[in-house]
Amino acid sequence: MRSRLARDPLTGALVIIAPDRAGRPGAFSAQSPLPDAVECPFCPGREHETPPESLAVRPDSPGADTPGWQVRVVPNRYPAVSASGYGMPGAAAGIHEVIIETPAHHERLHELDLKRLAGVLAVYHDRLEHLLGQPGIRRAIIFKNSGAQAGASLSHEHAQAIGLNFVPPELAREERRRAAHARRSGRCLLCDLLAKAISTRRRVVVDMGKAVAICPPAPRFAHETWIIPRDHGPPASDILEAMAACLRKVLGGLESVSPGCAFNLVLAGPERAMSAGHHHLLKVLPRLTGIAGLEWGGGLFVNPVPPAASARLLGR
Amino acid sequence: MRSRLARDPLTGALVIIAPDRAGRPGAFSAQSPLPDAVECPFCPGREHETPPESLAVRPDSPGADTPGWQVRVVPNRYPAVSASGYGMPGAAAGIHEVIIETPAHHERLHELDLKRLAGVLAVYHDRLEHLLGQPGIRRAIIFKNSGAQAGASLSHEHAQAIGLNFVPPELAREERRRAAHARRSGRCLLCDLLAKAISTRRRVVVDMGKAVAICPPAPRFAHETWIIPRDHGPPASDILEAMAACLRKVLGGLESVSPGCAFNLVLAGPERAMSAGHHHLLKVLPRLTGIAGLEWGGGLFVNPVPPAASARLLGR
Repeated sequence: MRSRLARDPLTGALVIIAPDRAGRPGAFSAQSPLPDAVECPFCPGREHETPPESLAVRPDSPGADTPGWQVRVVPNRYPAVSASGYGMPGAAAGIHEVIIETPAHHERLHELDLKRLAGVLAVYHDRLEHLLGQPGIRRAIIFKNSGAQAGASLSHEHAQAIGLNFVPPELAREERRRAAHARRSGRCLLCDLLAKAISTRRRVVVDMGKAVAICPPAPRFAHETWIIPRDHGPPASDILEAMAACLRKVLGGLESVSPGCAFNLVLAGPERAMSAGHHHLLKVLPRLTGIAGLEWGGGLFVNPVPPAASARLLGR
Repeated sequence: MRSRLARDPLTGALVIIAPDRAGRPGAFSAQSPLPDAVECPFCPGREHETPPESLAVRPDSPGADTPGWQVRVVPNRYPAVSASGYGMPGAAAGIHEVIIETPAHHERLHELDLKRLAGVLAVYHDRLEHLLGQPGIRRAIIFKNSGAQAGASLSHEHAQAIGLNFVPPELAREERRRAAHARRSGRCLLCDLLAKAISTRRRVVVDMGKAVAICPPAPRFAHETWIIPRDHGPPASDILEAMAACLRKVLGGLESVSPGCAFNLVLAGPERAMSAGHHHLLKVLPRLTGIAGLEWGGGLFVNPVPPAASARLLGR
């Protein structure tokens, strides 16, 4: 069944009604434990249980859809958007992929060494670029749900890449605010944010030279962290490595503050939509604190941890 | 420590940084089971473990802060907003209360009989009115987090009432959209929404005469339901009873679709802020589906269940 876009007449919220998602494992079991390794469709040897791969990192170059990969990208079997919906009024059309970040079922992202983690970020970047290059795609987002509390339906580490035929509301808001800041000040909002955090040092988690991890001034989630490259432009491999080093530090810090902590990652890619001056921005959203009625009813987030305290804890 | 308001420079999200919330039970354990009855501060006989009550429903009129109550309202020991912050720049000031809806630790809201549930809604209404009448309070919200997945930190059923010295973003958006609709059409947006659902009947869960439960056209959550009185004006006891009958039907339906399902309730009260024509609107937000990276990164909700299918399931 085709996915369709609906807008809440009262709040303006944008919703994809996606009946095809109802069949996915754990679709209605936000509270249940995730399935274990026995039947995991993301484990090596079960490549036939996913659609054929779109991309894989295979150091030893065996054949497609066979074991031997380090990172594997496949179409999402339960897509939130329909590839067939382009041009249909009200359709939520686009491309929805899964990025399997490790062949090892129990390996967690913070356990990857720096080289492999940089390789994962390179795949994220590649998929953003690829999706944004497809006809009809206006925006793309990489997001990752790690842990049931963060919305994961399978425990094997994976992220998702989605390309959309419309601009999602949060990205539209970000783009408006960045554009307004540039008009007003002549400067890049992310550069200014970074400079402000660095000048006081109070919200810096770690500075890896080409990239810096900071806690934003108004974190919606306890220990929310943003990883921002220092320079503009598409991220070369040294920038991706610095971002990976930041990510390892942040996830490691989170793991010591709260072992097994669920989290979301978000890497939005309006690169072709933005004028020059765009940074990559990788958000780490820990899911330690519950999101409850005040957030849904009032659009108001409550965070018990000031960002400077988070930066101290994570950066230790 | 005083709570302060912070706005995300990138997304515009509004966040209350509330260090006093860090001490509350389960503040950082969204994944952990809730504490059991042994040490529950909301159980009768432990009235001294909460601040002195602001209001209680006591059919047999024993003394304040003693057992014998059916519903009890107390100041929140871990407030998200500070009573002392009025007039301080950047302070998130206001009043934060807890509404304990039943003396029985294990009783769930859908198990209350109609009369008691109508009594609970009368207390919700009373607290909205009371908060909106306090100096400096601009908006008030009743919200309920039932179940750990919905953000509850204690398993004993309770709701929260919050009065704020500022307009929370989601209410501001709703008010703007309602005002624009009234300007454009000369009619009330909620009345029109209700009329549309009733005319097709496809999204009506149950029609109790003075109030109707409908699934909204763009539900952010699977089985999201809105309970709306048919007529304008402050809710007299017959309207509260019809709303309670709707709520019982919806929560009962949810319980049979997914036993133990976590949910949020939201009852916003911009009554004194809105011009005539305001309805009460009680939202039931089931937390069956995980809220994940796409929601946080894109502001985009994915719902696998079309609202007409939810109405059929819940209304059975």
